[in-house]
Amino acid sequence: MTKTTRTLAAFVHDCNELPEYVATEATRAFVNFIGCALGGAHHYAVDRTVKTALPFAEGATATLLGRAERLGPLDAALVNCQASAAHAFDDTHLATVIHPAGPIAAPLLAEAERRPVTGAEFQIAFAIGIEVACRVGAMLTVPPADAQLGWYMTSVAGPIGAAAGVSRILGLSVQQTTWALGLAAASSAGFRQTHGSMCTSLLPGHGARSGYWAALLAEQDVTASDQTLEGVNGFAQMFASSAHLSHATNRLGDHWEMLANVAKPYPCGIVIHPILDGCLEIARLKGFDASEITGIKLGVHPLCLTLTDRPNPPGNQLAQVSLQHWAAAALVRGRAGIPEGTDEVVQDPIIQSLSTLVDAQPTPSVGRDGAVVVVEMSDGTRHERRIEHGIGSLSRPMTDAELDAKFMDQAQLSISDANAKELLAVCRQLPTLADVCLTLEAAPAF
Amino acid sequence: MTKTTRTLAAFVHDCNELPEYVATEATRAFVNFIGCALGGAHHYAVDRTVKTALPFAEGATATLLGRAERLGPLDAALVNCQASAAHAFDDTHLATVIHPAGPIAAPLLAEAERRPVTGAEFQIAFAIGIEVACRVGAMLTVPPADAQLGWYMTSVAGPIGAAAGVSRILGLSVQQTTWALGLAAASSAGFRQTHGSMCTSLLPGHGARSGYWAALLAEQDVTASDQTLEGVNGFAQMFASSAHLSHATNRLGDHWEMLANVAKPYPCGIVIHPILDGCLEIARLKGFDASEITGIKLGVHPLCLTLTDRPNPPGNQLAQVSLQHWAAAALVRGRAGIPEGTDEVVQDPIIQSLSTLVDAQPTPSVGRDGAVVVVEMSDGTRHERRIEHGIGSLSRPMTDAELDAKFMDQAQLSISDANAKELLAVCRQLPTLADVCLTLEAAPAF
Repeated sequence: MTKTTRTLAAFVHDCNELPEYVATEATRAFVNFIGCALGGAHHYAVDRTVKTALPFAEGATATLLGRAERLGPLDAALVNCQASAAHAFDDTHLATVIHPAGPIAAPLLAEAERRPVTGAEFQIAFAIGIEVACRVGAMLTVPPADAQLGWYMTSVAGPIGAAAGVSRILGLSVQQTTWALGLAAASSAGFRQTHGSMCTSLLPGHGARSGYWAALLAEQDVTASDQTLEGVNGFAQMFASSAHLSHATNRLGDHWEMLANVAKPYPCGIVIHPILDGCLEIARLKGFDASEITGIKLGVHPLCLTLTDRPNPPGNQLAQVSLQHWAAAALVRGRAGIPEGTDEVVQDPIIQSLSTLVDAQPTPSVGRDGAVVVVEMSDGTRHERRIEHGIGSLSRPMTDAELDAKFMDQAQLSISDANAKELLAVCRQLPTLADVCLTLEAAPAF
Repeated sequence: MTKTTRTLAAFVHDCNELPEYVATEATRAFVNFIGCALGGAHHYAVDRTVKTALPFAEGATATLLGRAERLGPLDAALVNCQASAAHAFDDTHLATVIHPAGPIAAPLLAEAERRPVTGAEFQIAFAIGIEVACRVGAMLTVPPADAQLGWYMTSVAGPIGAAAGVSRILGLSVQQTTWALGLAAASSAGFRQTHGSMCTSLLPGHGARSGYWAALLAEQDVTASDQTLEGVNGFAQMFASSAHLSHATNRLGDHWEMLANVAKPYPCGIVIHPILDGCLEIARLKGFDASEITGIKLGVHPLCLTLTDRPNPPGNQLAQVSLQHWAAAALVRGRAGIPEGTDEVVQDPIIQSLSTLVDAQPTPSVGRDGAVVVVEMSDGTRHERRIEHGIGSLSRPMTDAELDAKFMDQAQLSISDANAKELLAVCRQLPTLADVCLTLEAAPAF
């Protein structure tokens, strides 16, 4: 009999060392998480969540990255994760379209404020949590599993990854960890109809909180089934038409799925990214004048249209998953950062008008991380770029320098430039930190 | 275009009076809820949840029914709902197998400790919440909808009912209520693989908390899609192979689905109940001696086998959904109450041995609320009972006197006899109470 849940629990319990290349990626994912959480700390969706939680937080002490308020640890995990997701700028495991770092890092940090956790311990727990989240997601969505794209995989798999990570730093037994994974899976939730509302970034936050809570329950010997993931009427059966259980456990500890988790260069749906590489190259051509554009023809992977074919988004949230908005914004502004996703830019008549010229077609020769961009000008000029593997793809991951620049761009939205620089240096030292909370101390809110 | 979410939100907002027979049922459901919450207040699963939550509850003041500890309002809603579900003794809407009262009453009571709510206001919000939960559940499971029995409908529909009820007493606008229902639906979760573990009773509790939180978020203008229930990749599509949307809104305010919500006479899966009516009639025959039983033949509805064919359950939690255990326990002890579901009784060798004699067969002539019980004795005697409609079925609901007796049996597990009597009288006066919190004051923990 397949023992998916227990096998994963044993991995969480027994994995005591990370291969160096996994550790390196874990540190990069951590830097990216902290940057994204600071970048989203004052998103209006986060403001409203904090306002909702504050009346229940008298005397609470858990840190909100880049904010002065304090909440209880569980709600702090929720808010820090939501902040990291608020601009759709977080990491992505492309095979499952899970954004795993937030749901795992946020509860680990909150728990680390309750009991001392070294940077090295944190790094292992964080990598394990991402690994578990990606693998339970892969079980549901990676062929031969039959994907159900309507589920929001970050909030479906995220709680299980969070429970794995927190179980690890709580030092739970294999049995308790099995329960924690099960309790977390029983709170897996969320679907894509919420996309474009504030609920979108809340869902990973809820997942972070639920997975954290699941591990705390298991610490008190609250039980779940030992076969929650694989059993009859369990997680795999309910969330996939046909799950492929062995994706969860095959070569566990040898093959690391978390290495396929990448940082995004642009704050929007990852399938839009190669389009933006092409648009930005063109926009930055000497003398390029966006007002002379007469046509924008995009050749894209079919999944790009399934997830982001969304003309005329009304504001920031829906624009995050609109290829039309981002193609137009990148061409007009020559940049594709958080400012390009604000309501103000989304509602700019020039960009709205240009976005109506976008004609995106599914193109068989284009991979999931590629795109063909053709921009036609009024004088008959035709700019064409073919992107084989976009920046931030597995074949062309962001460099450390690019990641650092992304971090600084975002951190400065919430903390001073000097603090951001210091914090970045501290984050880069993750595996040697005596206490991971040094990262929180380096980031006092304005 | 169908506007399921908004139509339900408008109902929540606009329904200002209950038909008298609906109000009567709401009061009965409330009495049953309070009794069940007191009966389950000290279940070991509840003890462990409280132990998990307490470190986060410094200075908290929300009441746990029948317990001395205090938690924040959201966690109190979770725990009071879990307690009401812990012995599987709560109410049931049979068409959907939802247990709606707990997820709705518990957050309403918690919120009523924050702002004054009259008994009459509570009664309307409670009835509305139950109605919404049963209707969104019916949309997924009642033919021609295609039921997915693997989902645990109480935690799938419960959050939406809780959000409806709390939205009502918060006085949210129709737009805010639409968001609240959507935010709640995005936390709908839970499946039957958890059954038999402590996670089973936690799930309704999580639903209570999530729905409450959803309404509080909506009060701060946190948005969700306006079509969360009916839209593409929304609640209905994700939780049913083929949903039937009009069950949610058809004759809303005229037909009350909550009238089909009934109180249970026995603390176990409702499909087992008609079997127990028959077994208890036989066990109470003069001179009946269970040690002389040689065979127990049961004719049951097929759903009864799907949900509760579970020989040799190891303890209390799995026994709750074991027809074999309950048939044997009722025959041996002549009762089928909370004591008959304890680990001690479940593990009693006499009852375990007798349960192996149970032979249950699907029987076409037996309805969902019926059963045929044949008990064969060593002297060749054959006791046969045919139950057309069990006690607690829609055709034969529990009388007020039976409900009061059930209340007293349970309340005495957590509060004094005198307090239980006073509390019962206060609960029975629900619609005239100046403040619904009078019910909490009448129930001080031992």
